[in-house]
Formats: sequence, C-alpha cells, structure tokens
Amino acid sequence: MAAASNVPGAQTPSIHSDRRITFSLKAPDATTLQVAGGDGLGMGPFPMTKGTDGTWSVTTPPSVPGFHYYWFVLNGVEVNDPASETYFGYGKETSGIEVPETGADFYAIQNVPHGEVRTKWYLSKISGEWRRAIVYTPPGYDDHSAAHYPVLILQHGSGEDETGWTHQGRAQFILDNLIAAGKARPMIVVMDRGYAQRAGTPPMPGPTGWLQNHTSFEDVVVHDLIPMIDASYRTIPDREHRAMAGLSMGGMQTLFITLEHLDLFAYIGSFSGSIIPNIRTANGTPQPFDPNTAYGGAFSDPAQFNKRVKLLWLGVGTAEEDDFRAHIGGTVKTLRKAGVRVEYFESSGTAHEWQTWRRGLNDFAPRLFR
Amino acid sequence: MAAASNVPGAQTPSIHSDRRITFSLKAPDATTLQVAGGDGLGMGPFPMTKGTDGTWSVTTPPSVPGFHYYWFVLNGVEVNDPASETYFGYGKETSGIEVPETGADFYAIQNVPHGEVRTKWYLSKISGEWRRAIVYTPPGYDDHSAAHYPVLILQHGSGEDETGWTHQGRAQFILDNLIAAGKARPMIVVMDRGYAQRAGTPPMPGPTGWLQNHTSFEDVVVHDLIPMIDASYRTIPDREHRAMAGLSMGGMQTLFITLEHLDLFAYIGSFSGSIIPNIRTANGTPQPFDPNTAYGGAFSDPAQFNKRVKLLWLGVGTAEEDDFRAHIGGTVKTLRKAGVRVEYFESSGTAHEWQTWRRGLNDFAPRLFR
Repeated sequence: MAAASNVPGAQTPSIHSDRRITFSLKAPDATTLQVAGGDGLGMGPFPMTKGTDGTWSVTTPPSVPGFHYYWFVLNGVEVNDPASETYFGYGKETSGIEVPETGADFYAIQNVPHGEVRTKWYLSKISGEWRRAIVYTPPGYDDHSAAHYPVLILQHGSGEDETGWTHQGRAQFILDNLIAAGKARPMIVVMDRGYAQRAGTPPMPGPTGWLQNHTSFEDVVVHDLIPMIDASYRTIPDREHRAMAGLSMGGMQTLFITLEHLDLFAYIGSFSGSIIPNIRTANGTPQPFDPNTAYGGAFSDPAQFNKRVKLLWLGVGTAEEDDFRAHIGGTVKTLRKAGVRVEYFESSGTAHEWQTWRRGLNDFAPRLFR
Repeated sequence: MAAASNVPGAQTPSIHSDRRITFSLKAPDATTLQVAGGDGLGMGPFPMTKGTDGTWSVTTPPSVPGFHYYWFVLNGVEVNDPASETYFGYGKETSGIEVPETGADFYAIQNVPHGEVRTKWYLSKISGEWRRAIVYTPPGYDDHSAAHYPVLILQHGSGEDETGWTHQGRAQFILDNLIAAGKARPMIVVMDRGYAQRAGTPPMPGPTGWLQNHTSFEDVVVHDLIPMIDASYRTIPDREHRAMAGLSMGGMQTLFITLEHLDLFAYIGSFSGSIIPNIRTANGTPQPFDPNTAYGGAFSDPAQFNKRVKLLWLGVGTAEEDDFRAHIGGTVKTLRKAGVRVEYFESSGTAHEWQTWRRGLNDFAPRLFR
C-alpha cells in the first residue's frame, strides 16, 4: 500500500505486508539511481533498476517499523522523492517514510479529543531574532479558561528543528491518546528551535554549530522562552510543574540545562542523548562520568537530588550502536550505584530513530507532574 | 545575499541587488542541469554550467519580487534544491525563493503583537476522514476571553494545500500588521484543504481531481468546517461576520460556494479565480457570463444582491495572461453594468503568483466586517 507519508495520489513508495518497500522514480535520462536512508531502512544505498518506460525501481528488504528519512541518489546527488512529504532533518528538507507497526496505535490520530498545535512567534532578547516555538495545548484548553497547566519543553535532534516532534514524532497524537485514556495529565508542550546565536555574534557554521555556542540556547530557554510561555499561556509557573526533555542533541541539551537550573525544572528526560558531564568546561573529549563532579556536582548529594528532582528519565533504543547503548545504560548503572533515582527505558529493536523517541514519550509523559 | 527562504546556513540561492538570482548545486556526476520555476522567475529553464569542482551554477535575469516556486532539472528529473525550504505546490513539496520587494513590509514579521497559527484536526462527516484546518487567531485572542470575532475562510490554489496561505502567503503577518495599524478588524482566519472526496467514493486522480467532485468540498465547508469553527472558537456565528475568499482554484470555489449560500456569507473575495458561472451544471466549456443566470441567478436582482452582500471583491495581477485578466476584468464590467456593486483590484506587474495574492489580501482584509 502507498505510504501514509506520500503526497496525495502518489502510489510509491509502497509498503508490502512484510514491510519490504518499493521505491520508484521516472528518470529516463538518469545514468545512476539509488535509494538510501536512515538506520531503519537497513543497509543502503540500494541500486535501482531502469524499466523500459524510464521508471527506475527497487524493492528493499523488510524495514523496521516507524518513521525513516530517505533520499534518492540521482547521478550522485542526494535529492528528495517528489512522491514524499518532506521533513526537516539533516539540516534540510528530507523525504520520509512512515512504516506502520502492527498493533501500535499510540501515535495514530484516533477519535478522541484533540489538542491544538500552535505556532508562536516571539522576539528573543538573547539572540535578537524572531523565533518560532511550536506549542501543543491540550484538549479543552480553550474551554476551561480557569484551568492552569504544567509545561513540558520538548526538543528535537541535531539537524532537525522545532517542527520535528509534531511532524516526524506525532507527539500531539501521543499526548491526545494518553490524555484521553487518563494516563497522562493534560499539559502544555513547547517545542523550540534548538539553535541560537547571541545577538551580534557571527553565525555558527550550519545548523549544528550550536555546540560551540551551547549556552546561547540555554539562555534563550531560561530568559526568553520560559518567561514568554508563562506570560502567554495558562501555565503553573513553578519548577514542580515544569519538565524538559529532548532527543539526541535535545537530550544532551536537556541534561546540561536542567541540571544547571534545578530551580526551574523538577522533571528531566533524555531520549538517546549523549551524556557530557563536563560540557560547560569541555574543550575536547568528555571526561568519564563521575557522579560526584558531573554536571557541576548536581548528583553529588543523591538524597538531596532525589528529593528535589521528581523524575530523571534516560532512554535508548536496543538497536542503537552498542557503544551508545552502553554509554547511556552505563550512566544509569553508575547513577543508581551512587544512590540517584533514575528511570531507564529501552525501546526494543529500534535504532537512533523516531520510533524509539515516540515510544519514549509514551513512557515518559505519563510519569510527569504526579 | 542568501534568500530568506533558504535553509539555515545555505549561501545559495543568492539574490543580487538588481534581483538577479544565482542558483548552484554540487553535482559532479550530472550530465545536464537546469533551473526552472514559476512565472516570476522569467523565462526558463536556465541551463547551468559546471565548474571545476563539480558545482553547477547560473545567474538568472532579474526576477519579479515575491515568492516563486522553482526546481532543478537534473538529468531530466525535476528535483528540489536541498538549499531551499519546501512549500506544498504542484501537488508536492517544491522549492521556493523569496525575492524581497523594496519598501514592501506589509508581509514582514514586525515588532507588533502577533496572532497564533493553530493546527486544528477535525473529523469530517462528509468525507469520513480526519481533516486538518489551519486557524489564525488574532493577537490577544487568549487574553480577551469574552471577545467574539468574525471569521474569514481563506483558500489556497490548485496543487497547493491548507499550509499555503501561512507559508508561501505570510497571511498571518499581513493580518498582524493590518490589525496593529488599526486597518483591519481582528478576525479569525480559517484555511482548509480545498479537496474532498465523499466517504465511500473512490479517490479522484491526483490532488486536483476536485473539479469532478466539487460539491464535496462545498459540503465539507458548509456542514463540517463552519459548524466546527463556530463550536471551537469564539466566533460571531452569523453571515454578517463570515467571509470567504480564495486564490485561483480557491477563488473559483469561493464564488460558487458563497453565491449558493448567501445565508452563510456576506463578504466574498476571489483572487485570480476563474469565473465559471454555470459550474453546478457544467459538462464542458463554461457558458458566457450572464448576470441574469450566472451562479443560479445570484445576481439577477442587483438591488437585493447589493443589500445582502456587503462586499464582492475580484482581483488579478496585471502580469497574468491577457486572456485571464480580460476574463476577470470583463466580468467586473458586466456586473457593474448590471448594477451589481463589486470591488476590483489589480496588482501591478505581478503574475499568477503569491505576490499578487499577498497584495490582494492586504487590500481585501481591511474591507471586511465594517
């Protein structure tokens, strides 16, 4: 069947019942054509074969379920599939394919009350630019004008942007479904652009240049974003009702921002995020994780930490690279050994991909604000 | 300078001060490469030249200001420019370039209060599907919980979708600026997907198959969209506070929907929209426009029409095809001769493109709900 991520009317990419995928492109004058993509598509690139009408095609081996970025390589150039919607990833608009997972309806749009996804423009004092935040308001937000809500700040990964969680991630449907089932507390979810340059400083190279300038995004969150959200929406503006989480780069950012600002956050989630215990002083390879000194000593008094932080949640996919899984799982062990309370989540069979993070959100959100 | 429509960090397309545009793409293994695009880019396709490092480039003649779709033709295949954001047009995601117009700041994001752009999912009884409407709420909507607002339904063109007016069109900034200047009344703007198939009927071919089934979208507007909007937002739910407008296909739809439902609409706008006076009975070429019989006789009693309809607004760009401009301008003359009050707007020097429609909205919106 045609993938749900296709543009209307496009018959390919087509997903078979065993999750093999047929890709095709009409290109009579191309001399080489391949399809390639993210981890979940399996090994690539896959050479495509030219048919008599000039349409090239290939059927790839069974894919992992979930959302996968992909692209054609047309005479050596990576280009999008005109038959696919595009999603911001790798620092640009990229084709993507949604491969259904049997029995998984937690991120499907269902016949339940739906929240809204709002685009909110705000002027940042830190970066001196108009920034765009994406804000999920829960079902009934407009109808209950006296109600106030907790806030989750939820960040994308490197090369992605503020649209990732609601486009690739389907976070709004995950929340709608959890809230309808009574499994999660109605909350506001704020997704911001995880890059910032301080006003008057030269731009960093490419969208991922943030690492050289990582405290600028931190300052946007602390000094611009949170005050704007609390002024614009009916929040409960205290640390017990404010969470931050993110995936990959966004998880890394979450850890160093929240652990520096425990006065602002009581709930913390890192989805497949690198743990860089000394990011504020790093000038090279991260140091080994030492709970006494990591993140400025945030964990040095575990009893105090456990009292103050209601949730520290770390997750990873079991099909992520072994080193990376060991990196996150190992940190969890070290923290637990030191007496720090930490929740650990593994997504079975999924890689450094959105299906891991959708499942992560589905586990994480119900634990918030309890 | 790098176009504002580029993805972050991309140096080309680059717009020169005389509005020539330099496009480039690294493609060492391509054998032919061109750039082509919509009317405002001038004659195309433009052959690109390969440099010693494998990067192809071309500088095109001065462009008309505004937003233009474009694409590369790489070994005969139309592909997007990885350096550009994508915009839904031509039934697929397409690259676009924003060429500044000197002195035109009416669609710029300015330091004024901003409304929100909301994504609203709703279940359509007519089409049996979850549909996505884009809803602009004016600045202060959340702060004035007793205020009620008039509603403009604003539709995209053929091959585009519900995201067009806020992405290509920048309608939210046009409204923000007009409202801040006191030139337009604060209003809710609803942008829906201008295609629909009735539940249980086979899909029309491609996204533009609507014409064979045009009353299904009409029924979605009348029976699903308007009731949903009035139930979900603080509207003033009467005809004197409800407008509909659209561009191209959306203008055509606006005319046949509103003129059949004057009990629902008192303000009507068609931006570069074909006038098909007999669309409900058409089985081929439209008949000549006869004010006595057009649109089921909606204009047959001009005095009554003028009393009932507060605004009928038709617009076109002076650089649109001569026949098309004569078609719209001629209809205006015929209507006026018959005694029908109609506003006519010409956008100077612009074609069947978004700059025409941005200017149209900037003229149209201030006339609403007065």
